[in-house]
Amino acid sequence: MAEKKIPYKIYLNESEIPTAWYNMRADMKNKPAPLLHPGTHQPMTAEELGGVFCEELVRQELNDTDPYIAIPQEIQDFYKMYRPSPLVRAYCLEEKLGTPAKIYYKFEGNNTSGSHKLNSAIAQAYYAKQQGLKGVTTETGAGQWGTALSMACSYFDLDCKVFMVKVSYEQKPFRREVMRTYGASVTPSPSTTTQVGQKILAEHPGTTGSLGCAISEAVEVAVSNPGYRYVLGSVLNQVVLHQSIIGLETKAALDKYNIKPDMIIGCAGGGSNLGGLIAPFMGQKLRGEADYRIIAVEPASCPSFTRGVYAYDFADTGMVCPLAKMYTLGSDFIPAPNHAGGLRYHGMSPVLSQLYADGFMEAVAVPQTSVFEAAEQFARVEGILPAPESSHAIRVAIDEALKCKETGEEKTIVFGLTGTGYFDMVAYEKFHEGQMDDYVPTDEELAVFAAKLPKMEG
Amino acid sequence: MAEKKIPYKIYLNESEIPTAWYNMRADMKNKPAPLLHPGTHQPMTAEELGGVFCEELVRQELNDTDPYIAIPQEIQDFYKMYRPSPLVRAYCLEEKLGTPAKIYYKFEGNNTSGSHKLNSAIAQAYYAKQQGLKGVTTETGAGQWGTALSMACSYFDLDCKVFMVKVSYEQKPFRREVMRTYGASVTPSPSTTTQVGQKILAEHPGTTGSLGCAISEAVEVAVSNPGYRYVLGSVLNQVVLHQSIIGLETKAALDKYNIKPDMIIGCAGGGSNLGGLIAPFMGQKLRGEADYRIIAVEPASCPSFTRGVYAYDFADTGMVCPLAKMYTLGSDFIPAPNHAGGLRYHGMSPVLSQLYADGFMEAVAVPQTSVFEAAEQFARVEGILPAPESSHAIRVAIDEALKCKETGEEKTIVFGLTGTGYFDMVAYEKFHEGQMDDYVPTDEELAVFAAKLPKMEG
Repeated sequence: MAEKKIPYKIYLNESEIPTAWYNMRADMKNKPAPLLHPGTHQPMTAEELGGVFCEELVRQELNDTDPYIAIPQEIQDFYKMYRPSPLVRAYCLEEKLGTPAKIYYKFEGNNTSGSHKLNSAIAQAYYAKQQGLKGVTTETGAGQWGTALSMACSYFDLDCKVFMVKVSYEQKPFRREVMRTYGASVTPSPSTTTQVGQKILAEHPGTTGSLGCAISEAVEVAVSNPGYRYVLGSVLNQVVLHQSIIGLETKAALDKYNIKPDMIIGCAGGGSNLGGLIAPFMGQKLRGEADYRIIAVEPASCPSFTRGVYAYDFADTGMVCPLAKMYTLGSDFIPAPNHAGGLRYHGMSPVLSQLYADGFMEAVAVPQTSVFEAAEQFARVEGILPAPESSHAIRVAIDEALKCKETGEEKTIVFGLTGTGYFDMVAYEKFHEGQMDDYVPTDEELAVFAAKLPKMEG
Repeated sequence: MAEKKIPYKIYLNESEIPTAWYNMRADMKNKPAPLLHPGTHQPMTAEELGGVFCEELVRQELNDTDPYIAIPQEIQDFYKMYRPSPLVRAYCLEEKLGTPAKIYYKFEGNNTSGSHKLNSAIAQAYYAKQQGLKGVTTETGAGQWGTALSMACSYFDLDCKVFMVKVSYEQKPFRREVMRTYGASVTPSPSTTTQVGQKILAEHPGTTGSLGCAISEAVEVAVSNPGYRYVLGSVLNQVVLHQSIIGLETKAALDKYNIKPDMIIGCAGGGSNLGGLIAPFMGQKLRGEADYRIIAVEPASCPSFTRGVYAYDFADTGMVCPLAKMYTLGSDFIPAPNHAGGLRYHGMSPVLSQLYADGFMEAVAVPQTSVFEAAEQFARVEGILPAPESSHAIRVAIDEALKCKETGEEKTIVFGLTGTGYFDMVAYEKFHEGQMDDYVPTDEELAVFAAKLPKMEG
């Protein structure tokens, strides 16, 4: 290859790491709908939310007016241990595809949590510490969030209680062990240690658990133990806020080389990574300063954007959490057992849901074998072994680059590579052994769950 | 923390990545002893070596005169996908230890192979491709080298046959799966697919394998298949040469901020990482331009430097490889089954062996539970989950920093953090469960193996 004008990896200097998060809601004309009390269906007050969440995080959750929120120095210091993350020019992938498109990816996997989750974990742990709490509780599915939170809590010397979806707990003993290395306690969910866990076990004996169920357990432990609060790794407004560091760095790196993307692609489960990646670009779009195609990619087996309902729903199976208005498949929805690719939450960030409803972004659902094909192709040329979640974005980035090959257009594609797949080799093995299928829920199946959405007044 | 003059992570620009490897042998007065033919005990000729190794790699193996060897552009391009690696200032560890010492580590784990091994793998794959070969064979123990080589071969579209020590093959199915993702074939060793494997199985039924045995198998397959050569991830002069990229980057980063280290610490198994890390510093020392303490850290359960013999020995169990003069425990030596910390090769790089014999470096052996204690302490404050191998260097870096705390000296410590521990969670679990012991071989045990060293004339 000849000398490149754009480096393989664009790194910002430490002094260029953003010192404030960007809050998309400030620039949204249609604000995301408020969280509602699960009993009264009235908007949750800061006081009510404060029983579950840390005070400062409640303020961030409810703040839809301030565009920028300063990042405390302690969090900035922690960010410097693993940030800035590189914006990588995928020269090798471009060459392999023979595409005139220019492909960039923001790689968030270069930290021990293996994903972008650490960006919000450290913020949430910091505010918990500031408030003088003893510890926090949370849920984890694949384990990225639990790992990130245990790292953050270890740094601030906070207790960390993780409820891990039972099937992951059993299939991913190494994830569990990483969390233990960072001093967290990890309980398989549903467990007999909570009332909601006992109830779910009685109703569904032998269940392998779900995120919605683990959330219910973690919330119960938080509200019934003094000095504890609950923290969540996705969906919430505050999480999307913290994750804006991804997009802000991406934009700063692109601006450094006068690169204007045509499209920005991210995988979407609860929406934390996508919301963070697109934040400043969406801000420009909302303010009418620039236009970009923004594409959410979700698994065809858990298609909340593309086949869900935009409605108020419970965030958890146990129905102890506030109601959120979001694209949802119903809080009882669990992807088919063969689903290996992560992104298994039934709902979607209320911020992203509103933006999608208002036409500011697109969504596409992709079948899982095509996701693993993209993952392997990417790994072989770009070196990095991607997480199944991230590989959803790779799939669509490759598809768009191949369209450019047909049309000859030199489009600039940016996608989020949220993490690494080191703890997902069971899924890769399934793929190599041809044991993976592309099961997609039928309309009838989805209708069953949709019918159980909570009835709202008016 | 206050504003730091030295950033948390010193990154070179891509244009500052070294374009030539540094060959310590050129500056050594006492050159490392030549490889000898296992039958005749005469120095191996380039022609003889060419039957096993790629031509250009043989030239590098035998070259003890040229101080710099240019890195081909294709390898430079690949390096840019994951290099430069960061030189990290361990501010958080320093604070936790309360030491006046300044601690830096060169982190080589930010690539999918999870270690520094990729630096030599890509070079060896490149030269194999240049020679028009179909593929290469190799052995792997813990799996870092096999993973790195499979990535490199995938990049250059070469076939890659890996013999993996049977106990690792069974205990690390995920490592195996990563190699398969990159298209390599992985065979547990000893296997029935080679003559030497059959012989070893007949003599030691039920053996769980060793590196020395896997090497013999890989060499046999290379020499008996046209278009194949054997490649090795450590010990050889060429590997130490390629790994000098680590030290050259480290030195360039330190020079950028006018930092002069007092000591440089690296873990030592076969010596590839340590040899690479220290290369330019050792060069200064050999030329009398500067002085540094250089410390090799090895496991107490496999103590080739500190308790081995400096003598000609076989590189492999099957005795098909050339003889190398090195610190060795004997080619039949296998660490006790409880040994979890990597670095299990019986011998040591001939270059490092000569330097150690000549008093240019120190060596220390550390027990494994203390290594895992250091690993966990490091993980909790610096975030990165270290490989057990790398944690040997962490142990001694912490020990040296604590000595500074006692004396009040503000020494500058640089150590090599060679890789991540994501695939070593079984070892971490043993540690957490208190199932790890510190077995160290007795003098009598070592004497048995030493007695079997090959008898040399004169």
